[in-house]
Amino acid sequence: MKKVLQELIDGKLSVDEAEKMLKTMQIVELEDFAKLDTARDVRTGFPEAIYAEGKADPELLKIINNCAKRGRVMVTRLEEKRYLKLKDQLLLNDESLMVEYNPKARILLIKDGEIEKKGKMGIITAGTSDVPVAEEARMVAEEAGCEVLTSYDVGVAGIHRLFSQIRRMLESDVKAIIVVAGMEGALPSVVAGLVDVPVIGVPTSVGYGVGAGGFAALNSMLQSCAPGIAVVNIDNGFGAAVFAATVVKQTIND
Amino acid sequence: MKKVLQELIDGKLSVDEAEKMLKTMQIVELEDFAKLDTARDVRTGFPEAIYAEGKADPELLKIINNCAKRGRVMVTRLEEKRYLKLKDQLLLNDESLMVEYNPKARILLIKDGEIEKKGKMGIITAGTSDVPVAEEARMVAEEAGCEVLTSYDVGVAGIHRLFSQIRRMLESDVKAIIVVAGMEGALPSVVAGLVDVPVIGVPTSVGYGVGAGGFAALNSMLQSCAPGIAVVNIDNGFGAAVFAATVVKQTIND
Amino acid sequence: MKKVLQELIDGKLSVDEAEKMLKTMQIVELEDFAKLDTARDVRTGFPEAIYAEGKADPELLKIINNCAKRGRVMVTRLEEKRYLKLKDQLLLNDESLMVEYNPKARILLIKDGEIEKKGKMGIITAGTSDVPVAEEARMVAEEAGCEVLTSYDVGVAGIHRLFSQIRRMLESDVKAIIVVAGMEGALPSVVAGLVDVPVIGVPTSVGYGVGAGGFAALNSMLQSCAPGIAVVNIDNGFGAAVFAATVVKQTIND
Amino acid sequence: MKKVLQELIDGKLSVDEAEKMLKTMQIVELEDFAKLDTARDVRTGFPEAIYAEGKADPELLKIINNCAKRGRVMVTRLEEKRYLKLKDQLLLNDESLMVEYNPKARILLIKDGEIEKKGKMGIITAGTSDVPVAEEARMVAEEAGCEVLTSYDVGVAGIHRLFSQIRRMLESDVKAIIVVAGMEGALPSVVAGLVDVPVIGVPTSVGYGVGAGGFAALNSMLQSCAPGIAVVNIDNGFGAAVFAATVVKQTIND
Amino acid sequence: MKKVLQELIDGKLSVDEAEKMLKTMQIVELEDFAKLDTARDVRTGFPEAIYAEGKADPELLKIINNCAKRGRVMVTRLEEKRYLKLKDQLLLNDESLMVEYNPKARILLIKDGEIEKKGKMGIITAGTSDVPVAEEARMVAEEAGCEVLTSYDVGVAGIHRLFSQIRRMLESDVKAIIVVAGMEGALPSVVAGLVDVPVIGVPTSVGYGVGAGGFAALNSMLQSCAPGIAVVNIDNGFGAAVFAATVVKQTIND
Amino acid sequence: MKKVLQELIDGKLSVDEAEKMLKTMQIVELEDFAKLDTARDVRTGFPEAIYAEGKADPELLKIINNCAKRGRVMVTRLEEKRYLKLKDQLLLNDESLMVEYNPKARILLIKDGEIEKKGKMGIITAGTSDVPVAEEARMVAEEAGCEVLTSYDVGVAGIHRLFSQIRRMLESDVKAIIVVAGMEGALPSVVAGLVDVPVIGVPTSVGYGVGAGGFAALNSMLQSCAPGIAVVNIDNGFGAAVFAATVVKQTIND
Amino acid sequence: MKKVLQELIDGKLSVDEAEKMLKTMQIVELEDFAKLDTARDVRTGFPEAIYAEGKADPELLKIINNCAKRGRVMVTRLEEKRYLKLKDQLLLNDESLMVEYNPKARILLIKDGEIEKKGKMGIITAGTSDVPVAEEARMVAEEAGCEVLTSYDVGVAGIHRLFSQIRRMLESDVKAIIVVAGMEGALPSVVAGLVDVPVIGVPTSVGYGVGAGGFAALNSMLQSCAPGIAVVNIDNGFGAAVFAATVVKQTIND
Amino acid sequence: MKKVLQELIDGKLSVDEAEKMLKTMQIVELEDFAKLDTARDVRTGFPEAIYAEGKADPELLKIINNCAKRGRVMVTRLEEKRYLKLKDQLLLNDESLMVEYNPKARILLIKDGEIEKKGKMGIITAGTSDVPVAEEARMVAEEAGCEVLTSYDVGVAGIHRLFSQIRRMLESDVKAIIVVAGMEGALPSVVAGLVDVPVIGVPTSVGYGVGAGGFAALNSMLQSCAPGIAVVNIDNGFGAAVFAATVVKQTIND
Repeated sequence: MKKVLQELIDGKLSVDEAEKMLKTMQIVELEDFAKLDTARDVRTGFPEAIYAEGKADPELLKIINNCAKRGRVMVTRLEEKRYLKLKDQLLLNDESLMVEYNPKARILLIKDGEIEKKGKMGIITAGTSDVPVAEEARMVAEEAGCEVLTSYDVGVAGIHRLFSQIRRMLESDVKAIIVVAGMEGALPSVVAGLVDVPVIGVPTSVGYGVGAGGFAALNSMLQSCAPGIAVVNIDNGFGAAVFAATVVKQTIND
Repeated sequence: MKKVLQELIDGKLSVDEAEKMLKTMQIVELEDFAKLDTARDVRTGFPEAIYAEGKADPELLKIINNCAKRGRVMVTRLEEKRYLKLKDQLLLNDESLMVEYNPKARILLIKDGEIEKKGKMGIITAGTSDVPVAEEARMVAEEAGCEVLTSYDVGVAGIHRLFSQIRRMLESDVKAIIVVAGMEGALPSVVAGLVDVPVIGVPTSVGYGVGAGGFAALNSMLQSCAPGIAVVNIDNGFGAAVFAATVVKQTIND
Repeated sequence: MKKVLQELIDGKLSVDEAEKMLKTMQIVELEDFAKLDTARDVRTGFPEAIYAEGKADPELLKIINNCAKRGRVMVTRLEEKRYLKLKDQLLLNDESLMVEYNPKARILLIKDGEIEKKGKMGIITAGTSDVPVAEEARMVAEEAGCEVLTSYDVGVAGIHRLFSQIRRMLESDVKAIIVVAGMEGALPSVVAGLVDVPVIGVPTSVGYGVGAGGFAALNSMLQSCAPGIAVVNIDNGFGAAVFAATVVKQTIND
Repeated sequence: MKKVLQELIDGKLSVDEAEKMLKTMQIVELEDFAKLDTARDVRTGFPEAIYAEGKADPELLKIINNCAKRGRVMVTRLEEKRYLKLKDQLLLNDESLMVEYNPKARILLIKDGEIEKKGKMGIITAGTSDVPVAEEARMVAEEAGCEVLTSYDVGVAGIHRLFSQIRRMLESDVKAIIVVAGMEGALPSVVAGLVDVPVIGVPTSVGYGVGAGGFAALNSMLQSCAPGIAVVNIDNGFGAAVFAATVVKQTIND
Repeated sequence: MKKVLQELIDGKLSVDEAEKMLKTMQIVELEDFAKLDTARDVRTGFPEAIYAEGKADPELLKIINNCAKRGRVMVTRLEEKRYLKLKDQLLLNDESLMVEYNPKARILLIKDGEIEKKGKMGIITAGTSDVPVAEEARMVAEEAGCEVLTSYDVGVAGIHRLFSQIRRMLESDVKAIIVVAGMEGALPSVVAGLVDVPVIGVPTSVGYGVGAGGFAALNSMLQSCAPGIAVVNIDNGFGAAVFAATVVKQTIND
Repeated sequence: MKKVLQELIDGKLSVDEAEKMLKTMQIVELEDFAKLDTARDVRTGFPEAIYAEGKADPELLKIINNCAKRGRVMVTRLEEKRYLKLKDQLLLNDESLMVEYNPKARILLIKDGEIEKKGKMGIITAGTSDVPVAEEARMVAEEAGCEVLTSYDVGVAGIHRLFSQIRRMLESDVKAIIVVAGMEGALPSVVAGLVDVPVIGVPTSVGYGVGAGGFAALNSMLQSCAPGIAVVNIDNGFGAAVFAATVVKQTIND
Repeated sequence: MKKVLQELIDGKLSVDEAEKMLKTMQIVELEDFAKLDTARDVRTGFPEAIYAEGKADPELLKIINNCAKRGRVMVTRLEEKRYLKLKDQLLLNDESLMVEYNPKARILLIKDGEIEKKGKMGIITAGTSDVPVAEEARMVAEEAGCEVLTSYDVGVAGIHRLFSQIRRMLESDVKAIIVVAGMEGALPSVVAGLVDVPVIGVPTSVGYGVGAGGFAALNSMLQSCAPGIAVVNIDNGFGAAVFAATVVKQTIND
Repeated sequence: MKKVLQELIDGKLSVDEAEKMLKTMQIVELEDFAKLDTARDVRTGFPEAIYAEGKADPELLKIINNCAKRGRVMVTRLEEKRYLKLKDQLLLNDESLMVEYNPKARILLIKDGEIEKKGKMGIITAGTSDVPVAEEARMVAEEAGCEVLTSYDVGVAGIHRLFSQIRRMLESDVKAIIVVAGMEGALPSVVAGLVDVPVIGVPTSVGYGVGAGGFAALNSMLQSCAPGIAVVNIDNGFGAAVFAATVVKQTIND
């Protein structure tokens, strides 16, 4: 600021020019203050993510195409049928952009190449029906720059296979493990009892009767006796991945 | 193993001696396999923690005194009145042990000196009534070897004070922030919108009407639009601290 | 009454005529007493509103057409598909009547011109999915004679845009602000912390897991730490608008 | 700003002086921006309110006595027994301060005279057990500068007495009516069907069985067929009064 | 029994004959004892009622056609579309049988003439959407031999119309009134406050948000301050009618 | 009215006198219209009932003593300890009044003799813990002029004793049976399967785990397969008795 | 019966005598039929069990003393403080009776010697706080004639100790295992995955937050992926033991 | 082990051979330890069961066809429509395999002959709508080697038919009875009151209003006064059958 004022005195700037420059500085500071919340996205490097559910088709297309002009775009909760209906209307002005659709994860990714991977996390599911949520988490985590080791369906194969999978992850130096489980939701507790990295539990809405909606699994995880667990909303693979990636990033910045 | 077998052939070991040695090796391996779950405590260095609620006085004393023979002990959820009743019956055989009681945290710590601190986390509360849960978290985190920056009651002082507190924490290079909040539980979302470290939400059972028991706060946090949040059980300062310390440790081991 | 009795004495009225006149007066008074509840509609000037859900097509058409004979009609919760099916069977005897359909608000309005606007309110939504409820509120509020300033999707654009939108509303002298929000439902608290006009929270059934059905948002709003908030039923844009319009009218009558 | 810059050019200010002045201006603007949330209390003129529940006695006393140094203080949810225990430790440095305690409302008011009343609201309760919540609302509303007309226990006396009480309130030109009701919570609907001012429903935790905790009343009010109702949390007389006072203030500012 | 024994002594019966006769008597008594629960249907004269939901088409047809061989049959919860699909496969062997289908009530009645009516009850609904449940109740009540006075949609027309409808019912000497209401479920309380006959509340699953599923209405009715009300399950028009008919029958038998 | 008008013409009344008389007539009619809701109590002959819970001691005493001046008074939910504390402050001005206290029913009755009994009802409980609610119902029913046959604890004694008790009630010509049951709440269904009089189910808050609060029993009764059942709120012996007495009265008026 | 008839013919019995004898036979048969439900207790050999909670002291003493006249008595849910107050008033007429009180199980047993044990079951608890429920189960199972192997607090000692305890139980040939667990309730699933005997899960009300009341544990067990589990009510050690004993008895009768 | 070591000394084994043999022994023991959980399936002899719901068609087919290569396969929750779509793509390499589909049970069984039956259980349903769940249980129980006696729809036919059916089952020496019931769920209690074999309750999601989803039935069964009942998840016929078969197997092994 002193510099501006001195230049004003020195006649290098008119009063109007000086005022304009000072105002700009002020706005930047003000904006900086108020926009702390947007700065975060820039620093963490997540692409823009669009939640497809609850948006009408034309509206969704418009948002995707607008975002795609600015770069990478991730669209979540986009059912395959809907993707097939919309895909011909996607506008990819930039030739470097490619479309990738993962029907299990229900994610559409418009990308300009591969993201460089800098840290590792693990993703484990108890059963086959938990895989879609795990795949959503995997794609989001990779997009956030993490390498992901997956081990699906270990609940079915017995506890000894779980042991070997966890050993593999620990040896690969994962910094966080996401455990996706429906039904009784006991798997995160078992895993947290075996490892010393943060375990993020994702309850799934798989099941029926008292398990319908995933509430039994959610409460089971919140109630876990093993104290290294934190939990995200039911079926929220996206949130689990962002959280786990934030953990992984702490270890990289060091 | 080959070595043992060779020594047997060489007559350096009798069959009985060889059998005994091999069995020992085998047990070690077996135990190693089965006891993965205990290894964790050793590695992470948490002291033994005893949950006082729901244990009768004589039973609790016996457990504490037994544990104290082996070293540091932390007793959680021990109300001040109960502590005052029990404190004269604590047996500290080792002169190096000291007793510390924090009535807000409701934690009794039997310690043999200060724990070396190796990484940092922040703890924020929305209101005064959330402080006991935050204090529980602070003591557990410190015992787990973390330096803790606290900022209590920021919800009351207005959003600008929250900004400055968060800035202070980020500048101190905290690797995780625990946010304790009852009522509507909105604070973790606000914080997660401003930082790029993992935010662990702890709902508290403060409040009345629809907020009684902390369920409104819990659901609010699970439902948060800001995706860097994971949640622990209502009032579970202990679990939040262990989880956050696990995150912090990831950054130190690197 | 004295006048009637005097005319009776004066022979201007027969006993039968006098009795009939007195009875009529009495009924009017009686009716007036009993019909306090209908008087309200007349005074506040709301058009007749018909809730379309749960009414069979022929039944709904009959009710609409009957009402349209008496003047303006508003039909709420009328899905676009259903409107397209029914629109050719609408009977508009009066040439001054026009049909307006808002697919987002799911409102059909049969109107005879524009309503004069006399006071202002604001409507804010957190996300895109909350817009239908907000649009319902807007149309109802305008029909009730209020000018409406809207600011949709501010939750996405960051807190600094929220500040500028609220400033715009306050400068326009709105007398009430409706805040529509799903998920964690934190926006009304934030708004109520910034303004000194009544804030009416409308939780929406947007979301999944613990947020499904809008209950997390509802409880969050009821539980809000910011004390200038009152709440209506989940997705009840109609009720919020009527309430807010009632508030606005208080300021006009003065 | 131009003025400062001109004075700098004119040599009336040194660069350092100019910089300091500009920075101060900037901070004021920044603060002004960030502290919007505190401005509101100043403008609306509410005294500081302290929620006594969940605060330990020494802590509560300290907060009260600190606040009392700055002027009027209102302490809510302070049970009579607790008040009697604490009252001798209240420090009223200023002789103009007086202590008023209302055991029904469970409110302690430290005041320096009467608040000037500028607008009117009504408060109605269904039964005797709803009176404490209504009294809390009354005291808060009066402290916020509103004149309050009360009509307690009208549910018991029959619908005809309700009619006459409402008529009295309307004739007195109340701008909002708070209706406090437990059990089935039907009273706000009845009132809203009769008046054209905003009706704020306060469910109370009176009752047993399905009505325990006030949830039946809350849901009944949210679900009301009469669309001029908005609702606050169970037993939240404080929130209802602040909201209603905010409504009343809109009519006065005009 | 004495008679049998005497005839045995007199040689009119052999021992075998006597034993057989006594056993038969005993069985009759035993059966009589065990079958108390079937006796009831015979005495109260309800036709067989078949609940259509959850039964596959062939199964349902078989049950209906079997029952129709024995006389009158009532099929409840039979959607119109399903009725149209099945009606040609109904087997009415007896020419005196007629088929009557009420699409609103979703009831199919196979009857052999009109039931003689012996007592009266009233059925009132709050809104249009409550009519299907009310119609179910009406048809069941008529089939149980009661004359039914209906008054639908009185909630909409205002409280003065409710008064006149109730007056009409009381003058007709109804012995019970069924009140069908969704949303906030307040109507049964209002009615019970005006009459001295039993009021049976039927909550309906009309509504959305906190009212979805009819639970707000149910709890409201159970919680009612007016003590002459008893309640049946949500949407249970059938149960309400059987209960009310049982009440009416008490007055006829006298 | 004609008579008044004629007398006016005939000079027997002045205009003022006539006007006054007509107005009085009108008010009577108006009042009559509005006060339908109080008429009911008079006709059904219930004494005034005061709900003791939630009223402070002085307040309760004042209400009781005021009512006692007008005649019989019933105070419900008055715990024995509280009764013993208050009984010396009861003011019975009229010597004909007697005090009766039933500690099981928690009812205080101030009476001027016995009520004449005109019809019969039965009250059955499943277990011992349901007796307080049954006793409340019995006293209220007797006060409403009904003779009551009770059969407590039949659930324990086995189904054959239930049969004999029900037979006894039916032979005594009861017109309604109240069945009080906690836990699984199956008894009302069993009874309704055996009788052809209305069965009123009263769930009780006896039990623990999923049965805590009486909700399992309530839902079980609402869900009953036996269609002659209606239900009142948990523990609401009072409401069940008033409802059953209203049923019994229908049979007497005939 | 033939014999009676022949004796009648032979003149050995009069008609009256024969009728009386036949009626007695008939009643016995009838009773036999109706009392199937009591026969069960006789056959299974359970002592009479009295649930102490919810019974007043004099009432409880009367029931206990009455039962003690007929033989063994078990009183459940009798807190130690209450037992100490009552124990001097227990009347043990028969000298062979002894009193045994287990404060953890909260069971008072009046016995005449030891029950012969005929089959085995296991009881496992996850934590210390689950022990009271397990002890209740143990005492009831022993009283029902089963030998019980217990293994408390295995959740704390780690999964390898669980393995060895289960191995011990299987080697001892237990025919059923009761698993008592609060918090997340995962233990029964783990056990059921390891054994081929029926596993009965008993959720306990231990815990706080989402685990309060035992509902998380209950739902977790009902939702278990391991299909050899059945569940009883929260804290219902009694029911679990009776069920398990019934299972064990099946293997003995063979 | 000694034997191997001795053979090593005796030169019958080389060091390498000995090491290999010892390692194998060790692995066997280790595996044996870790794989306790798979041993169970082998011993109990259940075929592989595949839960069809929540698996995509290609995925499901792949799993079925893979399993069918190893022997018998049971696919549960496979709707008829889906079975018809998939059946032509089933690959049965082995000619001895046969396909059996039960549309009521929604079970597909690929089998190589009949299972030998070794013990008996009974299955009872309250109503027609409970039959699908009962049929699922029956097929699973038969596949587990149990003979099953069924008695469907006894709730409708009256309590005397229930008595005769239960008598038939007891005379056939069933070792467990599964009782499937929706609505109020009272049937298991009635059955458990009559028999001395374990009763497994299966609540069904039949019903509406408070019974929707089967929660009223579930709670009713958990809350049952008859203590020989244990419960499985709503609609979980599979789990009930596995549990009951496990009970039956205990009696056979003896």
